[in-house]
Amino acid sequence: MVKPIEYADANAEVRAVFDEIMAARGVQDVNNFWKYLAHDPVELRSVWDTLRDVMADGALSPEVKELIYVAVSIANGCDYCVASHSAVAAAKGATPDMLNEMRRIVAMASRTNALAVSLRVPVDPQFEG
Amino acid sequence: MVKPIEYADANAEVRAVFDEIMAARGVQDVNNFWKYLAHDPVELRSVWDTLRDVMADGALSPEVKELIYVAVSIANGCDYCVASHSAVAAAKGATPDMLNEMRRIVAMASRTNALAVSLRVPVDPQFEG
Amino acid sequence: MVKPIEYADANAEVRAVFDEIMAARGVQDVNNFWKYLAHDPVELRSVWDTLRDVMADGALSPEVKELIYVAVSIANGCDYCVASHSAVAAAKGATPDMLNEMRRIVAMASRTNALAVSLRVPVDPQFEG
Amino acid sequence: MVKPIEYADANAEVRAVFDEIMAARGVQDVNNFWKYLAHDPVELRSVWDTLRDVMADGALSPEVKELIYVAVSIANGCDYCVASHSAVAAAKGATPDMLNEMRRIVAMASRTNALAVSLRVPVDPQFEG
Amino acid sequence: MVKPIEYADANAEVRAVFDEIMAARGVQDVNNFWKYLAHDPVELRSVWDTLRDVMADGALSPEVKELIYVAVSIANGCDYCVASHSAVAAAKGATPDMLNEMRRIVAMASRTNALAVSLRVPVDPQFEG
Amino acid sequence: MVKPIEYADANAEVRAVFDEIMAARGVQDVNNFWKYLAHDPVELRSVWDTLRDVMADGALSPEVKELIYVAVSIANGCDYCVASHSAVAAAKGATPDMLNEMRRIVAMASRTNALAVSLRVPVDPQFEG
Repeated sequence: MVKPIEYADANAEVRAVFDEIMAARGVQDVNNFWKYLAHDPVELRSVWDTLRDVMADGALSPEVKELIYVAVSIANGCDYCVASHSAVAAAKGATPDMLNEMRRIVAMASRTNALAVSLRVPVDPQFEG
Repeated sequence: MVKPIEYADANAEVRAVFDEIMAARGVQDVNNFWKYLAHDPVELRSVWDTLRDVMADGALSPEVKELIYVAVSIANGCDYCVASHSAVAAAKGATPDMLNEMRRIVAMASRTNALAVSLRVPVDPQFEG
Repeated sequence: MVKPIEYADANAEVRAVFDEIMAARGVQDVNNFWKYLAHDPVELRSVWDTLRDVMADGALSPEVKELIYVAVSIANGCDYCVASHSAVAAAKGATPDMLNEMRRIVAMASRTNALAVSLRVPVDPQFEG
Repeated sequence: MVKPIEYADANAEVRAVFDEIMAARGVQDVNNFWKYLAHDPVELRSVWDTLRDVMADGALSPEVKELIYVAVSIANGCDYCVASHSAVAAAKGATPDMLNEMRRIVAMASRTNALAVSLRVPVDPQFEG
Repeated sequence: MVKPIEYADANAEVRAVFDEIMAARGVQDVNNFWKYLAHDPVELRSVWDTLRDVMADGALSPEVKELIYVAVSIANGCDYCVASHSAVAAAKGATPDMLNEMRRIVAMASRTNALAVSLRVPVDPQFEG
Repeated sequence: MVKPIEYADANAEVRAVFDEIMAARGVQDVNNFWKYLAHDPVELRSVWDTLRDVMADGALSPEVKELIYVAVSIANGCDYCVASHSAVAAAKGATPDMLNEMRRIVAMASRTNALAVSLRVPVDPQFEG
């Protein structure tokens, strides 16, 4: 039901965000995510502003940030997010080895998460602080 | 129903794994997770062997690996796993700033994951390649 | 492996449910969900009976009920359910603004849910009461 | 906010369901789940009726049905459900070995599920059939 | 490991957000969620600003917004979020009947979500638009 | 981004695993899952070895093991895993009735899981023991 909104059909509010995304990423067009989100210009602006700040350089490197983003998207089962952020991670410098190691961790964490829930393991006192 | 198995009450197969964990981590006792898992010595051995290999040094640093582990555990809603691996991440060198940045990414990825699912965004052709 | 069962190929038990669904909704055919579920006539009857009662008019209006249904389907990552119930919500009177506001809430709740799990926030005493 | 409703304080509608549960299970009191659900007598009746039918003897044995129930509860991260249905599974004949094997499968399925999502594996043609 | 930060121990940045929350809600203290989140003043500010806007009056009434929030929190399995937002929903005018109907919908949507995934139901053409 | 690796293009390490899978299953080719996982030969070996052991005959029959596997995959929303393991379950002897009963349980467990989380039901003392 929701259709993508292309730049040519977007209002000024949406175009302003699209312009910022294209400038920040050095690309000529924005991804589908933004074109679909453009149906709600308020949310579009809020998501872009927050995402830009959260993914900016900081104590963690850009490729590590993207690897964490992909890992969460896998755990949440979001196909679009896994596809797009895996590509972004690679573009930001994550090597195939880093991607493979991330996948192994996500898989193994999912396995031990299931066991901890299954066995109803109580938190050790030293982790309760 | 499942109760923790202490070292003193463990059989040789379980003690061998406990010994390896304590040696690898330089600790005098293993965490609750292992004591509960000890009811299934086959799974205990398999989980420890795989976890040790997956979390070993590689293309990603130990603290980054733990941060990814915590991120997945948050997404999976495993309280025990969040508590224990947050502590391990800090012990391996993750600073409070790194932990905060990881939490922001997990929170933001969860928000955009929900939007992508909600809007049924199709994968862009360049990510299918 | 499971294939849709069309009305023409359905047994009397399945046709009876299909008839009720078409009559209740004023449509000439049932959605795919029912055609696939028709492989299990017992479950088909149980799901239709319960769904009809749960979604009937009550303290909440029909369009609000559908918005809650879509919100849960987003959180559960069920693409079919998001697609079909978003359409039903619109048909029952949910406006684009209402759908956008619902999506913002789902996205924001997912973000704060992740933070609450991540920070292991204990429930405030006044909420335990 | 929701408090358990004890038999002595329950209305006739709720008592009727409680009586059926106690008779079916040969117990003198119902579990917390039913006492909390008693705030919504309509849902209480619907859940009990459906659950009784779904868990009745059929092509699968009672203990296998409970093992599947626990497996889903682990995957959904529902602590109460894991605790209560693990106990029921044991009471219905599931041995510690069966419970351990179930846990291994849940853990391993969670691991491979994460990998399949991570790698965006397309469904093989023979499974689409 | 993360401990709540009380108003008396908070820095100016955190106090400013706490002051806004207390003023907006007419309360003398903020909930645990904000005290734990105060370890990351940047995220604290971002979450409060977005949450305030998302939950403001709009096309949906305040109590409906909270009901959707709780529904998502149930689906995500966040105990803290279910507890706190159920209380807020009631405070904003959601009646016990509305809460019960919301719970029935969440439970039923979870059941049909599972069936749709299980049966791999393809989206009907009319929903693809 | 990740592409399937066919046998002809695989290295010796990957071929060895492919050979074992084909021999164990009596097939001429491996499923897509393994071809995609072949980008990480270490994880490929680890997953195959563990999966083979976990799914081997034991206290639970092969078809019951696969039914549990499918049930978890439904709860996790993994489309590939539901498709492939449903087929395997049928091949190992799970009848349509068994598959239907499994689906009913998964659906019903998802419903009661949501209710237990929603109502914040505390674990009964007899299950804590």
